[in-house]
Amino acid sequence: MEHNKFLLQEVHPVKDIFSLPRYSHLNWEESWMMIESAKSLADRDMAPYFKEMDAQPAHYDGNGGVKTHPQLKTIIKQAAENGWIGGGAKFKDGGMQLPMMIYNTAQHIFMSANNSSQGYFSLSAGSAALITSFGTEEQIKTFVPNIFAGKWQGTMALTEPQAGSSLTDITTSAKSSGDGFYKIKGQKIFISGGQHEACDNFVHLTLARIEGAPAGTKGISLFIIPKFWPEKDGSLTPNDVFCAGDFQKMGQRGYCTTHLVFGDKESCRGWLVGEPHKGLSYMFQMMNEARISVGLVAASVAMAAYQASLQYASERPQGRLASEKDPVKAPTLIINHPDVQRMLLTQKAIAEGALALTMECNRLSDLVHATEGEERQKHLLLLELLTPIVKTYSSEQGSRSAALAIQVLGGYGFTMDFPVQQHYRDLKIMSLYEGTTGIQSIDLLGRKVVMEKGKALFILLQEIQETINRAAVYDPLKKYGNELAEEVVRIQQVLKHLSAFAQQGDIDRYLSDATVFLEQFSYVVIAWQWLKQAVVAYTSLQSGNFQNQRQDFYEGKIHTMKFFFRYELPHAAACAKTLMDAEYLTSVKRKEVFH
Amino acid sequence: MEHNKFLLQEVHPVKDIFSLPRYSHLNWEESWMMIESAKSLADRDMAPYFKEMDAQPAHYDGNGGVKTHPQLKTIIKQAAENGWIGGGAKFKDGGMQLPMMIYNTAQHIFMSANNSSQGYFSLSAGSAALITSFGTEEQIKTFVPNIFAGKWQGTMALTEPQAGSSLTDITTSAKSSGDGFYKIKGQKIFISGGQHEACDNFVHLTLARIEGAPAGTKGISLFIIPKFWPEKDGSLTPNDVFCAGDFQKMGQRGYCTTHLVFGDKESCRGWLVGEPHKGLSYMFQMMNEARISVGLVAASVAMAAYQASLQYASERPQGRLASEKDPVKAPTLIINHPDVQRMLLTQKAIAEGALALTMECNRLSDLVHATEGEERQKHLLLLELLTPIVKTYSSEQGSRSAALAIQVLGGYGFTMDFPVQQHYRDLKIMSLYEGTTGIQSIDLLGRKVVMEKGKALFILLQEIQETINRAAVYDPLKKYGNELAEEVVRIQQVLKHLSAFAQQGDIDRYLSDATVFLEQFSYVVIAWQWLKQAVVAYTSLQSGNFQNQRQDFYEGKIHTMKFFFRYELPHAAACAKTLMDAEYLTSVKRKEVFH
Repeated sequence: MEHNKFLLQEVHPVKDIFSLPRYSHLNWEESWMMIESAKSLADRDMAPYFKEMDAQPAHYDGNGGVKTHPQLKTIIKQAAENGWIGGGAKFKDGGMQLPMMIYNTAQHIFMSANNSSQGYFSLSAGSAALITSFGTEEQIKTFVPNIFAGKWQGTMALTEPQAGSSLTDITTSAKSSGDGFYKIKGQKIFISGGQHEACDNFVHLTLARIEGAPAGTKGISLFIIPKFWPEKDGSLTPNDVFCAGDFQKMGQRGYCTTHLVFGDKESCRGWLVGEPHKGLSYMFQMMNEARISVGLVAASVAMAAYQASLQYASERPQGRLASEKDPVKAPTLIINHPDVQRMLLTQKAIAEGALALTMECNRLSDLVHATEGEERQKHLLLLELLTPIVKTYSSEQGSRSAALAIQVLGGYGFTMDFPVQQHYRDLKIMSLYEGTTGIQSIDLLGRKVVMEKGKALFILLQEIQETINRAAVYDPLKKYGNELAEEVVRIQQVLKHLSAFAQQGDIDRYLSDATVFLEQFSYVVIAWQWLKQAVVAYTSLQSGNFQNQRQDFYEGKIHTMKFFFRYELPHAAACAKTLMDAEYLTSVKRKEVFH
Repeated sequence: MEHNKFLLQEVHPVKDIFSLPRYSHLNWEESWMMIESAKSLADRDMAPYFKEMDAQPAHYDGNGGVKTHPQLKTIIKQAAENGWIGGGAKFKDGGMQLPMMIYNTAQHIFMSANNSSQGYFSLSAGSAALITSFGTEEQIKTFVPNIFAGKWQGTMALTEPQAGSSLTDITTSAKSSGDGFYKIKGQKIFISGGQHEACDNFVHLTLARIEGAPAGTKGISLFIIPKFWPEKDGSLTPNDVFCAGDFQKMGQRGYCTTHLVFGDKESCRGWLVGEPHKGLSYMFQMMNEARISVGLVAASVAMAAYQASLQYASERPQGRLASEKDPVKAPTLIINHPDVQRMLLTQKAIAEGALALTMECNRLSDLVHATEGEERQKHLLLLELLTPIVKTYSSEQGSRSAALAIQVLGGYGFTMDFPVQQHYRDLKIMSLYEGTTGIQSIDLLGRKVVMEKGKALFILLQEIQETINRAAVYDPLKKYGNELAEEVVRIQQVLKHLSAFAQQGDIDRYLSDATVFLEQFSYVVIAWQWLKQAVVAYTSLQSGNFQNQRQDFYEGKIHTMKFFFRYELPHAAACAKTLMDAEYLTSVKRKEVFH
């Protein structure tokens, strides 16, 4: 909670957001009370079921249904009643018009406590946001209040068995039935929350192709396909949506992952959202928020693993420092071993660095919602640039972080008696959800870096420079600012090197190492977030004005910034070396060389 | 199998080992037939149960027993009958006097197929080796034949709940009962194979402290403590060894991990092995082999994950290259995507690099067993230096490799329908077994690098230089040799920098970043193994003498060498940057800064 307060009050001041008309109904005290009540909810209704929901995973009942943990109903109900499904929506849509900075701080708390269960209501919130953004008044009225109330589950249905990440190739079809609706036929897999016991109805936001639509992504439309169709008289009629299975997974086992079949009996109706063939662009509004959300889940679970390993290290006596030769001396707490400190600080650097970046994204998201014109565009560009980073850094490095949590506990960490192994298992899906790491990397290098002639990148570099300038004021921070500036130059060198391929028309080669580029870029972006935190912490220490925090807390931030620069940032140069190399090794034609 | 043949025939020629008197009873054809029969055994009796043994994990029966998969009995029996428990032992001890190069190639095949079940008989082999090395004729006669026959399970019992990695602090006690035996009392945890249904008796090689022994590791003795005591008349008497539980784990779920209680009824007898107070040094003979074995398991499981993801990538059509804009064109196989090639080559570089190093260690181990005097000492020193590397590189990078296998499969990789998630879960324990990564790193930097005034390091650097010299003959390989030489210099610079702390008596600081040093060192050692493989492959390609391999196979080796140098090796310099930094960040005294 201390870290959340630090982010909201000092690093990315939420009071600036409250000063915007859209959010002027809020103040700090009230918002913090909401967050504290979210913490109570998480502690009472979610955390105690974290392990159970893994040990008794969601599973198919053999006949269209998915068995879930009985507590799930309570969790979704509590979340709904406390505004944590619809809270981010506008007043006019039945929401509380909360800024993402507040809303997602609460979600972070839920994710840290029990990420499987948070998935259900967070997904509902995203689906409802899609309807309120692009749906008709009637669609909004029909579906959104029930989703916000936690009675109906919203989902997003994109993936198909044969297409995977390649949305170009989806084949689910839609045929106008003349009455304003469409007849749907097709199959979707990996549909989170697609069917379970805690909700009465399921509202599937589904991508499908209208008969005669253009090939590729330009022919995809968005439909609302409820499991039960809400008739005008308020009754619900079965809509030929059949759940054919629930994938069993190595983690996030409390969160069902279903296989849906639409129109097996030729009687599945879908309701078109917005205009035909624009489905993918609508879906991407939700998708972009979902990507930030996945980054936040990953950072939150890594944070939970960090906290668990920190607690263990603070309580477990074992071994002696290398300088202590006397075997009769009592063992020391393992937190005193340098290698354990290294593992703890690595986790802190990753988890808190990722959380700081998530909060930066939340802030930008709020600014996008509350500003207009050129200013809005600037925030939007920066947000779009940071989205693949926050999603991928948090998930890839979050997994590494949770591995270190296990390592701190030694053999115990690998047993089901401690939560860190579950964090590790849960985390692994984050690099796959909502666009794999490979997809995110191509998005970054192929689209975000070059959009509007590199304007987003220009804005980011300006922001980074501003932080470097602020650090330069303080002697002890100045050198870190200089190091960051060097890494910024290195990114520009790499981009110059890669751009030559794009200019020659070799787009495959330009993008071939996009993942390595994203890794390099991420180190720099997270270093920026750490320097930002350190400047704030140093300022507070200098002023003697500790606000809500302890002196140790601020010193911990500066220490962890130094740690990140010393242990993590050097790998950015290693990535650059790979990227600048003249050889092209990932365009092998004869596949036999892999064997 | 192709890769195994390449290692045994070309990279580390086993025929040189067959020329030594100890192994002169063997030849290539016969040895390879044994390996092929091991492959049949693995395919028939082990691989088909890989998934089942995970889905129905070993578990405590509530009353001293552990339920295991029914197939386990067959597997142990088959392994025993085919010589894969006792095969490495000398003829005089009932073995087949196989070199480790052959024996461990077979074990690698078993580990790739079903690592949980291989653990049982591999552990038995290690326990028996300990008895044959340090036990009396009577002890050998009493226990070893039954272990080799697969009837009795050997185990190693070191860890205690309060001591973990710190063997200094073990408290299990032994009191002479005057009849040549000792009365044992204490508890051990994390005892693999400690109790199960597939064997009739359990022979626990146990560390304990004789009454009045010196404190610390100098007062630890080694005992044989069977579950049932073999009486002179051949009967078995219960020996007050109680299994109090079986830890449930996130991986290797088919391999039981027990909690043993010795002497709860004051009637547990132990049989001292060798001299009192020398137990730890005896145990370390087994431990060193166990560490290499853990490295081999990790590399083997990573290899299995690689193969599974390679097969998927070769069969799954999805998406199009970035340069292909036509959505109507058929999707390409995912192996054609550069990012998928990057993930596959990273896995190949890690798994085959680690396997090559394991084979180097097997070769050294065979030379240690078959030579004498100064020559033996030289092989031993190099083996000791490489042991923490092979154990740690394989386990840490193996986990990363298996994560990439999941990633290649996308969402499917996270489901229980594919084996890669099990490989990923199984692998995580390898960085904990037989000394955690932190312990291995301190062993490397605190002991191995400095022993005999750095002689082991000197020998290694000579070996590396020899490989560089061989590469220099071929123009296309020369530059990689030069790069490797640069990295060797960097290691020496780091050691010079760190040594200053040791010389000042600050041993804590000298060792504080041992793990980062081990990481740097590992990149260099694996680069050496890759260059070695590339030189051999290039030589064969030049000569047109392809022996048993395909041209593509050799080209794949050279290609993967280049990949390792381009994508992995640059991170060695990043580690060096961390290690050379002036700041000391892992000696935090006020623990509040972690919060």
